[in-house]
Amino acid sequence: MYKVKVYVTLKESVIDPAGAAATKEFKNSDYPEVEQVRVGKYIELTIGDTSKNVEEAVHDMCKNLLVNTEVEDYRFEIEEAAAK
Amino acid sequence: MYKVKVYVTLKESVIDPAGAAATKEFKNSDYPEVEQVRVGKYIELTIGDTSKNVEEAVHDMCKNLLVNTEVEDYRFEIEEAAAK
Repeated sequence: MYKVKVYVTLKESVIDPAGAAATKEFKNSDYPEVEQVRVGKYIELTIGDTSKNVEEAVHDMCKNLLVNTEVEDYRFEIEEAAAK
Repeated sequence: MYKVKVYVTLKESVIDPAGAAATKEFKNSDYPEVEQVRVGKYIELTIGDTSKNVEEAVHDMCKNLLVNTEVEDYRFEIEEAAAK
């Protein structure tokens, strides 16, 4: 069994409306020292035992289901976990 | 200057509709070994130099602006970065 943590971020060149709104909000808050906010996704996958190469499988999942690689980058960490 | 990475997740007891939809999608995909998907947020903050205690300030930002602590948990990492 594996726990996989996937971090999905907008590419630097892509406009991030949620982040821009949050940045503005910070400027008018008690925390004007916050200069930039970028908002991405954090996805946790629980994967059962499999004969597949997990790293390759997660790359495929990201490319095919989880990430829009036109505008988003991703990285992930795999932890082997004891089955419940 | 600081780079802060904030991970926001729904509490275990809270229903995650986006995660549930993704879990179902995986079951019908080439990756039925994916047993659970939970979807959270990943937020990157760039914070300018400040006399505040950065760790305390980020806790305050999370509680007051970024996280709904009724239903979400958060954790973060602070990196000191050279100013541009």
